[in-house]
This record gives sequence, C-alpha cells and structure tokens, in this order.
Amino acid sequence: MEQPQPSGEPKTRPNHAKPPLRVGMVGYAFMGTAHSQGWRTAGRVFGLPRQPVLAALCGRDGAAARAAADRHGWAAVETDWRALVARDDVDLVDICTPGDSHAEIALAALAAGKHVLCEKPLANTVAEAAAMARAAEEAYGRGRLAMVGFNYRRVPATALARRMVAAGRLGTLRHVRVAYLQDWLTDPDFPLTWRLRKELAGSGALGDLGAHIVDLAQHLAGERLAGVSALTETFVRERPLPGGAGSGLTATPAAGTGTVTVDDAALFTGRFTSGALASFEATRYATGRKNALRIELNGERGSLSFDLERLNELWFHDATDPGAEAGFRRILVTEPDHPYIDAWWPPGHGLGYEHTFVHQVRDLVHAIDDGRRPDPSFADGLQVQRVLAAVEESAGKNSAYTPVTD
Amino acid sequence: MEQPQPSGEPKTRPNHAKPPLRVGMVGYAFMGTAHSQGWRTAGRVFGLPRQPVLAALCGRDGAAARAAADRHGWAAVETDWRALVARDDVDLVDICTPGDSHAEIALAALAAGKHVLCEKPLANTVAEAAAMARAAEEAYGRGRLAMVGFNYRRVPATALARRMVAAGRLGTLRHVRVAYLQDWLTDPDFPLTWRLRKELAGSGALGDLGAHIVDLAQHLAGERLAGVSALTETFVRERPLPGGAGSGLTATPAAGTGTVTVDDAALFTGRFTSGALASFEATRYATGRKNALRIELNGERGSLSFDLERLNELWFHDATDPGAEAGFRRILVTEPDHPYIDAWWPPGHGLGYEHTFVHQVRDLVHAIDDGRRPDPSFADGLQVQRVLAAVEESAGKNSAYTPVTD
Amino acid sequence: MEQPQPSGEPKTRPNHAKPPLRVGMVGYAFMGTAHSQGWRTAGRVFGLPRQPVLAALCGRDGAAARAAADRHGWAAVETDWRALVARDDVDLVDICTPGDSHAEIALAALAAGKHVLCEKPLANTVAEAAAMARAAEEAYGRGRLAMVGFNYRRVPATALARRMVAAGRLGTLRHVRVAYLQDWLTDPDFPLTWRLRKELAGSGALGDLGAHIVDLAQHLAGERLAGVSALTETFVRERPLPGGAGSGLTATPAAGTGTVTVDDAALFTGRFTSGALASFEATRYATGRKNALRIELNGERGSLSFDLERLNELWFHDATDPGAEAGFRRILVTEPDHPYIDAWWPPGHGLGYEHTFVHQVRDLVHAIDDGRRPDPSFADGLQVQRVLAAVEESAGKNSAYTPVTD
Amino acid sequence: MEQPQPSGEPKTRPNHAKPPLRVGMVGYAFMGTAHSQGWRTAGRVFGLPRQPVLAALCGRDGAAARAAADRHGWAAVETDWRALVARDDVDLVDICTPGDSHAEIALAALAAGKHVLCEKPLANTVAEAAAMARAAEEAYGRGRLAMVGFNYRRVPATALARRMVAAGRLGTLRHVRVAYLQDWLTDPDFPLTWRLRKELAGSGALGDLGAHIVDLAQHLAGERLAGVSALTETFVRERPLPGGAGSGLTATPAAGTGTVTVDDAALFTGRFTSGALASFEATRYATGRKNALRIELNGERGSLSFDLERLNELWFHDATDPGAEAGFRRILVTEPDHPYIDAWWPPGHGLGYEHTFVHQVRDLVHAIDDGRRPDPSFADGLQVQRVLAAVEESAGKNSAYTPVTD
Repeated sequence: MEQPQPSGEPKTRPNHAKPPLRVGMVGYAFMGTAHSQGWRTAGRVFGLPRQPVLAALCGRDGAAARAAADRHGWAAVETDWRALVARDDVDLVDICTPGDSHAEIALAALAAGKHVLCEKPLANTVAEAAAMARAAEEAYGRGRLAMVGFNYRRVPATALARRMVAAGRLGTLRHVRVAYLQDWLTDPDFPLTWRLRKELAGSGALGDLGAHIVDLAQHLAGERLAGVSALTETFVRERPLPGGAGSGLTATPAAGTGTVTVDDAALFTGRFTSGALASFEATRYATGRKNALRIELNGERGSLSFDLERLNELWFHDATDPGAEAGFRRILVTEPDHPYIDAWWPPGHGLGYEHTFVHQVRDLVHAIDDGRRPDPSFADGLQVQRVLAAVEESAGKNSAYTPVTD
Repeated sequence: MEQPQPSGEPKTRPNHAKPPLRVGMVGYAFMGTAHSQGWRTAGRVFGLPRQPVLAALCGRDGAAARAAADRHGWAAVETDWRALVARDDVDLVDICTPGDSHAEIALAALAAGKHVLCEKPLANTVAEAAAMARAAEEAYGRGRLAMVGFNYRRVPATALARRMVAAGRLGTLRHVRVAYLQDWLTDPDFPLTWRLRKELAGSGALGDLGAHIVDLAQHLAGERLAGVSALTETFVRERPLPGGAGSGLTATPAAGTGTVTVDDAALFTGRFTSGALASFEATRYATGRKNALRIELNGERGSLSFDLERLNELWFHDATDPGAEAGFRRILVTEPDHPYIDAWWPPGHGLGYEHTFVHQVRDLVHAIDDGRRPDPSFADGLQVQRVLAAVEESAGKNSAYTPVTD
Repeated sequence: MEQPQPSGEPKTRPNHAKPPLRVGMVGYAFMGTAHSQGWRTAGRVFGLPRQPVLAALCGRDGAAARAAADRHGWAAVETDWRALVARDDVDLVDICTPGDSHAEIALAALAAGKHVLCEKPLANTVAEAAAMARAAEEAYGRGRLAMVGFNYRRVPATALARRMVAAGRLGTLRHVRVAYLQDWLTDPDFPLTWRLRKELAGSGALGDLGAHIVDLAQHLAGERLAGVSALTETFVRERPLPGGAGSGLTATPAAGTGTVTVDDAALFTGRFTSGALASFEATRYATGRKNALRIELNGERGSLSFDLERLNELWFHDATDPGAEAGFRRILVTEPDHPYIDAWWPPGHGLGYEHTFVHQVRDLVHAIDDGRRPDPSFADGLQVQRVLAAVEESAGKNSAYTPVTD
Repeated sequence: MEQPQPSGEPKTRPNHAKPPLRVGMVGYAFMGTAHSQGWRTAGRVFGLPRQPVLAALCGRDGAAARAAADRHGWAAVETDWRALVARDDVDLVDICTPGDSHAEIALAALAAGKHVLCEKPLANTVAEAAAMARAAEEAYGRGRLAMVGFNYRRVPATALARRMVAAGRLGTLRHVRVAYLQDWLTDPDFPLTWRLRKELAGSGALGDLGAHIVDLAQHLAGERLAGVSALTETFVRERPLPGGAGSGLTATPAAGTGTVTVDDAALFTGRFTSGALASFEATRYATGRKNALRIELNGERGSLSFDLERLNELWFHDATDPGAEAGFRRILVTEPDHPYIDAWWPPGHGLGYEHTFVHQVRDLVHAIDDGRRPDPSFADGLQVQRVLAAVEESAGKNSAYTPVTD
C-alpha cells in the first residue's frame, strides 16, 4: 500500500470535533525518547485529524519512569505494562521495549482493543511475529490498527525514492545494493552489554540493522526477496563484562569476561521475485561509518542512491537524459512537492533523524482516522522476520541459497 | 532500536525550584514557527535551569493569531504587541516580526523589564540598532538580557568550528570565504512581495542573507571586519504585483508591475583586523542552490569548511598531519563530545535546521540563569549592522574600500 | 606556469650503458592502445634503468596492424604471433589479446627466452593459468620475468592504500567491500558481441571485472580469500545479433537474435584467511555507473576507501584521531611523497586512467633490471583464477560456500 | 580488457601527404615538460592533419638542455632562442619561458614567419601584450598563427561547459564565481624564490593563477568583464633567501631574508558586459587546497560547476527539470560525445591534467591546417592582461571600481 501523499498540509485547521488519540507508551530509552518527540510534535506541524495526547508512560522503575514522563511530557505513569494496556484513557499502545517483549505486549494490547505501534524488529522469532500478524489482522476487523516502526521509510528522501520507483522512473529493476554500517564495536574492550547476548537480544547486527535494510530494500523495490545466501561472523568472541548500569550501546568494562553470542556482522546476497539481485551488509565494525545506511537501486531506465548520513539528499540518474548531459543528480529533498516537506521549512533547510518519527505519527494517525491498514503492517514485519530467519538458516548451512517462506 | 539512549546532558533533573521562563512571542510566520519549535522542545531535550513556558503569542489578526497559538502551543493571544509587553506573566519577549519593527518592540520590552530575543537583522538601520544596543546594555545592569537571533552559530558543526578556531587549530588566519546562495528569485515572474520593497524590508539579499554570513564569519574568525569593498545589483527591476495574501517568499502574480527597490545580490571583499582577507557573496539568483551558506577558513595550521546544505558535517584540514596522509576530513558532527550533541541522538543520527532554534533557547536560558551577557548580544547585532552599512556605502561610492566604524 | 618542474625521480639520467628493452606486442585494440601509451611514455617521465623500445606489433590483419603500428609508434609489424615471439630483436612479449590465447602465446614466449607481460585475466581456465605459472617460475630460474597486468594496483591512490595497510595503519582487518559497476549492457537491444559468448570470452562480468577486484582486494588486504559464496545472473538472455565488425563493447544490431552465454553480474561474499569478511559485486547493469571500481577496507585502527571514478583520491579514516576531530579524510594523492607522483606534476594536478600503464612499465622495467620477481606474478594471476573458479563453482551449487583451492 | 578500443576520431588515417609540423620549444621546466608530452602524444591519439615533430629544444645551459631534450624526445638543441627562431627546420615556436621574455621571443618568431604557441600570461605588461597581439594579427595575414596557452579551456569538462553555455542551457547569466586556490606559500619559511620577486615574476598569485581564471570565466561566460574592484595582499613580507638552485616553487632556505614584492592573494569582484556579476579569488595560502580552480555559473535556466581537483566531472543543474526531480547532476565527462573523449578511453576511464596540453596541440594543429585564427588568440591574451591591469589599478586606488579598457 502506498503512502497517502503527504501534500498540501494543513491549510485548514484540523477538525477538533474528532476525539484526541490518547497514547500509552511502554519503554522510554532511545526509542521512547524518539517516539515522544514524534507524538509531541506531529500535531504542531501537520494538520492531523486527531490530536495525539501523551497519556501515560510505562516503565518498571517508578521513579525513573516518572522522571522520563516529566521530561518528555507524558501525563501519567505506570510500572506494569498490563496496567497501561488496561487503561480506559489509552487508545493506542506504543511499544518501545526490547524485542523479546514485543509479542506479549502487542497481543494483549490488541486484545484490549487498542491500536498498536510496535518498534522493529517486530519480534525475536518468526513464530511470535506470525502470532502478532494474525492478531493484527483480526483486530483490523474490529477497527484497530497495528503498525511496525520501520521509520526509515519516512525519510523524505526514501519516500521520494519510493514514489519515483512506483512511477516507473527506474524501469525494470536489476540491482539493489544496501549496507547498514556502524562502528561502535570496533574496540575489542567494549563490554558485553545485553545487545551482545543472544538470550536477550535475539541476534546482533542482523536483527538490529539487517531488519531495517531488508524492509527498506523491499519497500523501495516494491517487491519481496525470494531467497538469500548468507555469511555471519562474530569477530570478537570474548569481551569484558559490563560494569554498572549502562545501556545496550554504552557501558564501562568491569572485571571478568563473557562470551558474545550474537553476530557482529551479516552479509547476504539474494534474489527478488522479479529476478533482480540484491546484496546486503549489516555490521558494527565499519570503522568510521557511524550510521551509514546506504541503498542503491539500478533499473533499466534509471538509478537511485541514498545514504542516511546525508538524509536530505536523494541521488537520481535518469538514463533517458541525453547521454552527454546525464549524471547522478543530487536532489535536495526539501522542496514543497517532496513528501512531508510542505509542512516544514523552506527549500534547503534540512530535516534530521527524529523527523522520521514525526512522520510516522502523522501517517499512523491518518491511517487510524481513515480506517486504512497501516503501512508497514504487522504482516510486513512478519515478512521481514522470515527473511532474517532465512538469512540465519543459510548462514547455518554453509551459505546455501535459502528460499524465504511465505 | 539501533543504539543507546541519549545520555549526557540531563543526568540530573533540572531544578524545578526555579521559576519557569514565561515567553511572549510577537509574530508567527516562518520565524515564529521555528522559534515555537525551539521553545517547546528545548526543555524536553536539555536539562534547563528554568523551564520555558509558551505564555502568549501576538499577532494583529486575532483569529489567525489564535489559530497559530493553538497550532504551536501558545497559551494566550494578544493582538497588540504593547499589550504583550505589558503582561505580568511574560518574562521574555521574542521578536519574530520584520526588521522595521524590531527597535520599537525591543526598546519597549527592555523598558518593561523583559528579557528580549530579537530575530536578525537586529534593525533596519545602524541608528536603530545602536539605540537597541544601548538599551540592552542598560537593561543588563538591571539583570535583563537581550540576544539577537543569529541561529547559525548554533549548528553543532559551526559551534565545533568556533571551538577549534579558538583552540588555535587553524593558527594565523589568512582567508575567510563565505557565500549564502539561494535561488528563489531566478524566475522573473516571481511577484513583488514585501521582501523586494525597500521601505518594508530595508534591503534585499544583503540584510537577509548577508547579515547571517557577516555574523558567522566574524564569530568563527573570532575577530571583526575592518573594512569592505562592495558591489550590489538588482537583476530584475520590474516584477508583477503580487495577488492575494502570500508571504515574503511565496505569492502569485497579479496584473500590473512594480519596481524592485532592494538588492538581488551583494558581493563584497574585506579585511579583518588581523589582516586576513574575506570575500562575501549573498544572492537569491544562484540557480539550484537552495540554502547554501558556505564558509571556509584557511589558517597557517589548518582549514575548516562548512555548507549549510550538509549541516551535520564539518570539513577540517590539519596541516600538521604528515603530508602523505593529509586531507580535508569530513567530521560527522554527531558525536557525544561535539557541541549540543550529547542531549540528542547516537552518532550518525543527524540533526536539522530547526535544531539551531532549540540550541538558541538552551543557551539563552542558561545565560539568563547565570546572569551572563548572551552571545550574540545586541552589541554584536549592532556591529553586524555597521558592516552592512559599510557595504551599502561602498556599493554607493564605486566600490571604494570603506572602513567599518565602531 | 603555475608551479615548478616535476622533480624527484630522474635526478640522474638513466644509465644508457644498459641495453634497451625491446618490446613486441600482440594485439592492438583497447589494451594494445593503453599499453602502447605506457611503453612510449614511461621512459620520458621516469628514470628507467633500461629504455623501452617499441620494436614490433603483431596483428592478424596486416594492413590494420601496420596502421596501428604507425599510429602508436611501433617500428615493425608481424601478422603471426609465432613470428613475433621468434624475433631476435624482441626481449619482452606483451600480450594484449583476448584471454583464450594468453596461455599459448605466453608459454611460447617464455620458452623462447622472452620476458612476458600478459593482460588479465591470466587465462580462461585454472589449468591454463597453472601451466603459465609453472612456466613463469621455470623461466625465472633462467632470468626471465612474467607479469600479469592488474594495472589497478598502480593507481597512486591504491598504491598508497597498500603502503598504509602494510604499515599497519588499519590494524586488524574486519571488512573488505568491493564493487566494480559498469552499465553498458542495460539496453536490452545492445547486440550479442563476442564478449557475451562463453566460447569466446570465457565468462562475463566475472572474468572481466571480477578478476580486477579479486586481485585488488587481496593485494590491498595483503592476504588471500579462503572461500566464497556466489550468485551469478544473466538478466537478458536473448539479444540481437551484431551487424558489421564492431568490437566487444560497441556494435550495431542486425536481424535475428542469439543467446547470451555469460554472466551479466556476479555477487559473492567471502572470508579472508585472517577471518575478515569480503563482499564483491561485478556487474554491467549498474545504470549510471561507468567505471565505478569501489573498494573499502575497515580495520580496527582505521579505514580506507577508493573509487576509480575519482582515481586521484584516497579516503582514510584514522580511528586513532581524537574522537571530536575524526572523519574520513580525502587525501588528494598528488603529493611528491605519494607513490609514482614525484615524476609527474605538482600537487593537485591529477593523473588519469592511462597512467596505470605507464607505472606498470616503470615497475616491470625495474624488476627486470633488478632480477626481482615481478608483482603481480603469474602465480598471483593463477590464484585470482582459482578464486574465480570457486565463484563459478559456488554459483553452480546453490551458492554453497566453496573454498579457494591452492 | 574491460571495454572496447577508443574509436571515434581517427576512423581515417591522417593525410600523410601534408608536411609535418616541426616544433622548436624554448624552456624545458614544468611547462616545457607538459608541452613535450602534448607534442609527443597528440598525433598518437588524434588523427591530426599534420604530424608534430619535436625538432629542437632551447635552453641556456647546453648540457641541461641536451639532457632535457633526450629525456623528452627533442631531436636538436639550441642554447640561444634566436638561433632556434632562425632554424629552417622549425615551423612553430613554442614559448615556455617566464613571462618577461615572452614578448621578445614571440615577436621575433612571428617576424621570422613561424607559428607561435606562447604560455600564459601572454606578457608581463599590457604594452608588451598589445605589441604581441598586433604582430599576431599582422602574421595572420601572412598565414601564421599565434595561440596563447590557456590550457584549462581544454579540459573536456570545461569544453563541455562552454558548449552548453553556447547552446543556451543556462539562459541569461547572473553570476560567475571563480577561485583558484593553492597552498604552497602557507609556510612562512618557504624561501624567496624568483616567483616572489616582482622584477622577475611581474606579479604573484594574480598573474599566475588570476590569469587562468579570468580567461576561463570570460571564455565560459562567452562575454567580457566590463570592470573590477580589487584587493591584493602580501601576508608574509620577509622570507628567507633561497639556497642553491631551486625553481620557482621549490627551494631550501639559506641565511638572510629578503622582501616579497608580489601579491600572495588577489580578490576581486566585477561586472560582465551583460550585467552578470563575477567574483574572483586567487591565492597561494588556501591551506589544504592544492590546485582548486573552481568555477560556477548561474543562469536563469541552469547552473554549471567545476573543480579542477576533480577534472573529469562537470556539475549541471537544469532549472527546467521538474522541481521534485531537479538537482545538480554530476556529469562524468568521459562519454564519446563529450569534447575530445572519443579519441581516448571508454566511459569512466578518466583523464588527467596533462591531457589539456595534448588537446591544445590537437586544436592548434587543426587551426593551422585550416588557416583559422587560433582560440585563444594573442588578442584574447591581451584582453586578459587588460583585466589584470585593471585589477592592479583598482587595488592601488582603494578598490575603486575600474573599467577594463579596450
């Protein structure tokens, strides 16, 4: 399903006759902070049919949750997600916890008649994701929506890329090459945080970064991967234990070491259903690359290229230009007729990472108001999970090409 | 979830014993929208000593002002700025109107015991700016601060550049070359909005874009311009009259034409007090350049280069590197030890244009809390005005080199 | 005149007491033209111990060969390569023919006591390449050298990269990602030239582009690939037959179609012997990419990045720089202490593609004069061939990981 | 072998019935080396109507000249330029000496019935240049041509830019901004070579770098500068005396110091005859910029941008593209329908600095064969000299705007 065209924003004021959309959020770390910014800001910028209300935030540590709620502007606090899900004054549950709790919370929230926004990856296993997708479909019949948070679809440049691919500007697709490169594990003394332990994190670079690029590649291509061939690697297998609290990505080493049980890097090639080829790389060891999600699509009529480290730019090669004048052009995606932009700033005044969460809220609120299936749905999240499972399977059987099951 | 929570800044909660900072804003167009975002967001991200409160917004058209207030989150509305200035529940007046009203409002607000934040350029004339600077200095004696809104000092990359220059990383400065290139006037049928009429706008590209680059160049260099030699030009002298409302930058043409009375472009060279050379260009006719504020500084020990169209990057050449390994390096200014960043997102997750206004609020609130003179002060705004006046004087006398007066 | 004379290299004149190096070249198409430029120019720029002499050129069409010889500066002409090999006035045979004739000519030339320079890929099969490597080793015992023409090792930027890796600037290597992207087959009406027929060309993008990047990746990494997992694809299987003469890459379509029997694209991942991961892509369908050989190496202490479309630049990230100042730096590889440069032009005056052939001649002549094994040797060419064979094998058995045999 | 042979150009062999063009060159330093490469190579690559012959080289030091002649491939040697000019076996005199001897040699060579190629700047004074232009015009009546060596017109990218401007792709021109940035003087201990002494060099950055950019700007714009306003500066006025021989750009310091009597940097703004604005900067103090000749032209319908440090690229913004898809496109100027390219390599296989000299020879030989006035002529060189004189005059009278005289 294509995005509603984020056009001609709020020349008229929203209809305040409609009830607000009361949100309860579980988790308040990195993603909770980003989502809070999205919920707080979307209605200030876009003319939304229903105004989001930051009703309640949930965290196990009551004092910390209260502080976070004050900080980010949430009215109430809960310390048990079940209590949050049970609140009458919550219309939508926003799940920003680690992946191992997604399924349980989402299923309960849908059962309780809430809309759900769930961070990616949808779940840590295909089975969980499948249950969630079934529940989401069932809830849709009752008018409740469930969206998975693949926010990188909502960078204006990637949204423009999707629009151009859908309009046929690339013609028959031949190649999609995509990498998500970070470098925060290059230091072998970085400690063994929960992100490096399979029992907690599910997987390493694959689930964290790979999920994003599998979704984005399939979304931009407008088609699915048929199969994959994969290698994964853990470069540093013993790391110092973490001292003190820390989070997934920051910590100080303590005495003793432990074993890393997730992948540091995953490389895979694949075939799209149309026959186009794809190559993927997800790593936390690309020294000097901080958040380099790069994707390039080559088609018979043109190519598109994007790098998240320069997120206001989309590069387009139009192969139908006269040969002597053809070249990759740097489209500064800040024009009023670019996706999402007319609600923001004048041309050349760039947006940042967090705006993807504002756009996510915008699109979700519209979908709820329209009763349309959200995009990406839990079914989309499930399908990404199936690709990741095929990657792990292939990596486990000597890289043999492994079909993605339906 | 890719990476950890934004750590740094507010490890401890702000001291809520301190009173909030109640803001009254005049004007609600482009700048008013950006400032609203700044006031709303700063306290959510940074640990501020006093929490900003969006107390009242002022606009002449009551209904429109009310709608804007609702939209942007302002509590009350006024239709006369004098009434806003008189309100007891306003501690700070934020002036987002066109330049011709800055002086009158700022002087009244300071006289009424308010802190003031005033958009750039500080005023349309040196005389007005001088009166404002005097009033600001007098108010400072009474504990009231006055800041001018040169927000481009607060891009993390430019703030880092300033830090590096101050630390001596460039050594003796030789060259500063700076341009602010836009292209919204290249169409000769773009209508004669108020921005193209001297009686309203004061000047054209010079006051609008030139003020920014003169301030930024002097700020980064850490010294002032001693004199300038200038050319200005109005390429298209007759334009269609605008139809309907429109704003300074958007409008539809109507019947009839009128005369453009401001500059379309201004080019000037100059000398800094140290003897370093500077070149400036401000234009609205640089086809394809949307918001290209570019500045490069060359010193004996190194160089820095920045382009606002890629605002998360600062380029640095360290001339003390071994020759075979030296080169301009692209610093992605998203690391926790870069200015402002530790309150935001993990490395590589870039910021946008509007964040400069959040940072401006942060710095202003701290300055008020500390009782420090704000940076940039009205005196700084006055000095920029004197440079612009010297530019106009030089342009009017055959480009003769014209000293900047104190 | 901007800058000074090219100093460095030949402060002393070459020793003309030494005999010239008389060259006989087989083939005079694209590679023959490039090699001619190399042989003609190297002695004019570098102070060579022996002066190359363009003794004889060989081509089957006598008139065409004569014209090419006149054009490129070769003294004599032969129409049978056996006659060329037999000439007493030829010291070195330079083989610029298609791959299917490399083995026969090289073996004969070595047997005749000539030095040999052979274009890449060394041969169309591992068996041929192995025979050539054996013969080269045997000839080395008799003082005759055999080099394979992987010219991309001799871009100053790649040579600098090798020097930096060898000096430990990257530390432990983690990733090598490399792609060679061209786009001349995107038009489905491009005709079925000999390059698209397996019986003539051996393979498609794999042997043509893949050979270059396998060699370059291993050379820069300083280690070999242990195994690979591969996908290959032929996107367009029926193409118009070519009309008229044409060459491999240019032709006009004629009536009728034929079947493409080589790969259009090859993707493979792999492991280096050290455990570093590698990803490779070779394609003729990357719309808008003309000659984009891109390689990036990530190590624990730093990263290097190169793109042949900007061949005068090498990007280096030094992870030991202070965090706030670290970034990929663009080294303009035109300084006198960069490889090959001091014989050329002042800083910033870039070189081009053909200079790799001049450098190849320079290095080969020095190796001959020194009696050192040339680099890359036929053994290196054989090893690349073995990697390509493993790629084909893996692609043929469902992408299963396939070791590279010794 | 990646791609096909360089086709295009010489489909037919040159007409060898025509006599060769016998060249005598005066000077053999940096420019002499570059010109030698041009004369040697042009006939090997392009199908020239007359084949250049490197007949004689002239230098005051006989042994050094002999060594240079051997090195670069010149047949004979002279130690007095008058003897060279008098030789019967010389058809064209190529002047690669410093500017103070250009006039004398050129006048003598034209008087002796030779064609002349003279390095830029044409002369050190307007008077000399005027005399040369008159002599050239007179010689043209006798079938003798005189060209000035503004080689940067002959980068394929700049030649393409000229073609696009001439075809109206930019529409009405508004801005030309151009800089030539080098950094070899940033070290204050670099010694006082002849290039820093006015009596020998005429001027500093202005004549050396400024001459190039004035010519290129006017050439690309297709119109002349009407007037300029200028600043010049000498940052370091005392430098160590040079020890030993050295050249203009390289030397080792000795005891004692001397006074720099030329400009280190020159900044000027100007107006074209059409009313377009121009800004120029020439400096030897732009730390980290090695040979950054950058030019951008903005017109009503489009813009072009070029940087000599990436000389295979031309950036083009087509303002008539649909807004949502517009952007500066990077044209890789290596396609067969780009200027000069079809005689060289396949797409993406870039050229370098020295190729401008090959193209210069190609164009000059064609002009001689056709009897056409060469481009740029001595009259063009004179006009550039007049601009430089206006720059110096303006700099000397407080930057007052100074018309360029005819």
